[in-house]
Amino acid sequence: GAASLFKGPVPPVVAFAMGSLGFMTPFPSEQYRDCLDNVLKGPFSITLRNRLQCHVIRDAAKDEIVTEEPILVLNEVTIDRGISSYLTYLECYCDSSFVTCVQGDGLIISTTSGSTAYSLAAGGSMVHPQVPGILFTPICPHSLSFRPLILPEYVTLRIQVPYNSRGHAWASFDGKDRKQLAPGDALICSISPWPVPTACLVDSTTDFLRSIHEGLHWNLRKTQTLDGPRD
Amino acid sequence: GAASLFKGPVPPVVAFAMGSLGFMTPFPSEQYRDCLDNVLKGPFSITLRNRLQCHVIRDAAKDEIVTEEPILVLNEVTIDRGISSYLTYLECYCDSSFVTCVQGDGLIISTTSGSTAYSLAAGGSMVHPQVPGILFTPICPHSLSFRPLILPEYVTLRIQVPYNSRGHAWASFDGKDRKQLAPGDALICSISPWPVPTACLVDSTTDFLRSIHEGLHWNLRKTQTLDGPRD
Amino acid sequence: GAASLFKGPVPPVVAFAMGSLGFMTPFPSEQYRDCLDNVLKGPFSITLRNRLQCHVIRDAAKDEIVTEEPILVLNEVTIDRGISSYLTYLECYCDSSFVTCVQGDGLIISTTSGSTAYSLAAGGSMVHPQVPGILFTPICPHSLSFRPLILPEYVTLRIQVPYNSRGHAWASFDGKDRKQLAPGDALICSISPWPVPTACLVDSTTDFLRSIHEGLHWNLRKTQTLDGPRD
Amino acid sequence: GAASLFKGPVPPVVAFAMGSLGFMTPFPSEQYRDCLDNVLKGPFSITLRNRLQCHVIRDAAKDEIVTEEPILVLNEVTIDRGISSYLTYLECYCDSSFVTCVQGDGLIISTTSGSTAYSLAAGGSMVHPQVPGILFTPICPHSLSFRPLILPEYVTLRIQVPYNSRGHAWASFDGKDRKQLAPGDALICSISPWPVPTACLVDSTTDFLRSIHEGLHWNLRKTQTLDGPRD
Repeated sequence: GAASLFKGPVPPVVAFAMGSLGFMTPFPSEQYRDCLDNVLKGPFSITLRNRLQCHVIRDAAKDEIVTEEPILVLNEVTIDRGISSYLTYLECYCDSSFVTCVQGDGLIISTTSGSTAYSLAAGGSMVHPQVPGILFTPICPHSLSFRPLILPEYVTLRIQVPYNSRGHAWASFDGKDRKQLAPGDALICSISPWPVPTACLVDSTTDFLRSIHEGLHWNLRKTQTLDGPRD
Repeated sequence: GAASLFKGPVPPVVAFAMGSLGFMTPFPSEQYRDCLDNVLKGPFSITLRNRLQCHVIRDAAKDEIVTEEPILVLNEVTIDRGISSYLTYLECYCDSSFVTCVQGDGLIISTTSGSTAYSLAAGGSMVHPQVPGILFTPICPHSLSFRPLILPEYVTLRIQVPYNSRGHAWASFDGKDRKQLAPGDALICSISPWPVPTACLVDSTTDFLRSIHEGLHWNLRKTQTLDGPRD
Repeated sequence: GAASLFKGPVPPVVAFAMGSLGFMTPFPSEQYRDCLDNVLKGPFSITLRNRLQCHVIRDAAKDEIVTEEPILVLNEVTIDRGISSYLTYLECYCDSSFVTCVQGDGLIISTTSGSTAYSLAAGGSMVHPQVPGILFTPICPHSLSFRPLILPEYVTLRIQVPYNSRGHAWASFDGKDRKQLAPGDALICSISPWPVPTACLVDSTTDFLRSIHEGLHWNLRKTQTLDGPRD
Repeated sequence: GAASLFKGPVPPVVAFAMGSLGFMTPFPSEQYRDCLDNVLKGPFSITLRNRLQCHVIRDAAKDEIVTEEPILVLNEVTIDRGISSYLTYLECYCDSSFVTCVQGDGLIISTTSGSTAYSLAAGGSMVHPQVPGILFTPICPHSLSFRPLILPEYVTLRIQVPYNSRGHAWASFDGKDRKQLAPGDALICSISPWPVPTACLVDSTTDFLRSIHEGLHWNLRKTQTLDGPRD
């Protein structure tokens, strides 16, 4: 929440879990005073969390491009078909290279922080927040051979609703602020130069592993007879 | 192939496709002379490909550790159950943190270059070679909640066969050089300080996208009536 | 299309492909007269395709249940969150047994004919139309351990939007006829006693395999050097 | 275990959990006397569990086919590459139709009882034991577009190691009895006419759902704030 107040450089954030899944929020809110004291006494470890900066471009072929104010997301921007009965059909470019057409329920462009949120539900991998990358994860793609892609953090992505598209698409930003994209509109995403420094409880790896164990029950299983035969 | 000749710094490699899938080998071997000429005339673009350096540790609890010569892989090291009818049971650590136990057919530790090889077949994501990371992909895990993980390139992974394991495990390196791991043995992996510089045909992103389109038929589909209803 | 004209017993259907994916429509429309002649000269093989009959129940706890006219689907009924930013939260019952809560983008209840449509995009298996079953496939579930389920054709499913649900859900039937489900509403599905007999071009298995090869490029790959090493 | 004593008709089995995952074994072994009493007092519900009967054919092109004694499996038969560094390359037929070539780690042919065992780990769906079908699930397939298939129980499958295959393959039956398949050998599978009747604790559906909840933690998750925004 606090991160969205800053469009430019962001001061260090000490994030408290207020319910919900508690990713990126390692500190229990009940003991906030003690936690803050400990952090301020320092030294403490920092995870720099990337954000995506997104521009919606209206009628992309026109020369005068109405660039709206960039929208910053910590987790992901999604483009989906909303309640349309038509599949999305999105043309995707990475820098100047054509990537693919996404035909399906939609597409998620996610930070590594967002890799344990919607992208994971759509079949993406879990990515440690210190890996510099952007996740490109389709939502229920129509094609059998579509797999999630992870791209370097330095690229610029362009997602285009083609002019001959019959349906509209909807973009949403960290699950909020739905904007309709008409045929001809496009979304431009790249990593913001201003990451969000968040204080770690222990360190980046320990906090990440704790969050996927406790928050997601990752690879949790009833311990059974060790080394039982394959079933 | 050529890369494995160099244990330390590696000179730039111009890789030719000699059949097989042709990842990392953008240059058609038929026109090798022209290609070499073009590359030497320069300027040309380079992709630095990480390698994993692996150590097999025998009887890990003993103080004197018999470190064998490191084994370098460009794609992946796998630990699997071979023809054992017992599941592998592998304890995994990332730096000093416990990651998880892998119970199943095995585990793949992969470079991003290897993300389009065995790791992909086991359900991992496709990762652009310029993303600095290590893929941690289970093979047929026994647990429903196991998903592939991507870790930063600076970590050291330790995969341990527990002392009370009834079965043995087998490590293999870029699909070759099978070594048996007895209970108590361990495998240590980290990114080698000496990446392999490979010449690009165009640039890293264009070559990567071309290889997943042409080599893997990624998201290839019969173009159908645009925007048909959801089926 | 024709199948939906009949709420009760359905006469044999000779389905022609009019574009789109052409599942269940093995006959090319260009030669419709020849095809019809061949079929009528008989003998020809029939695939009996199950349909789901669906009832929407308003305010399920009330005693007087307003049963609307049943809606018949050949592929699937889906319940999703539409453009709501809240996850669906659906309580699911199979006959009198509690199955699970679906938290995510939604749920697909599919016939085996529909197994190659939306359910497949959401990760379901491909099921031969002569297997008597109902597919229960989550859409982007919030839980790591959710896998698709296949239930016998004789069960009745009940999908309930809980009374304390903050968001609404939307049901759609073969991708059409969106109906809003308020908290307290429920959907009841079971296999209709009146399947749709469709004429086969060859036989049920041959037609099914042809359709997944040609229509979906199932397991299509560039033939490469036989038996190359693992990559 | 008991089921394997009978090659022909099998009397009803009351299966007790002796540790391990406890599928098909709903009765706790500690109270075996009470359980048996309850079952014998009857009435009790029965689940008929299909078995696969498998024949290994040596040198399939020869006219004289050496049919060995059929091998019966309750869960699955697998064909894999064992410790070979070559991918399996298996030609698969369903009745007289060509299905596909499996290139990868191997293939699982599973009963619906086996759908919650190895097939599930390889990405197959969970299938209620009363659904009459055979699961065809690839293990780490080399192709992006390979998805699991479910076929009717009345088909005969033939899995052939081609004559020009460089590597051998290994068949195993319910995880045991590994047999090597040389180039030219084949495996023939069909549902045995003699299913195994197993006594239910409650009924087939209730027992199945209990086993996937308790044994596999299917869709288990920390209940969180109801209807939180999409993450």
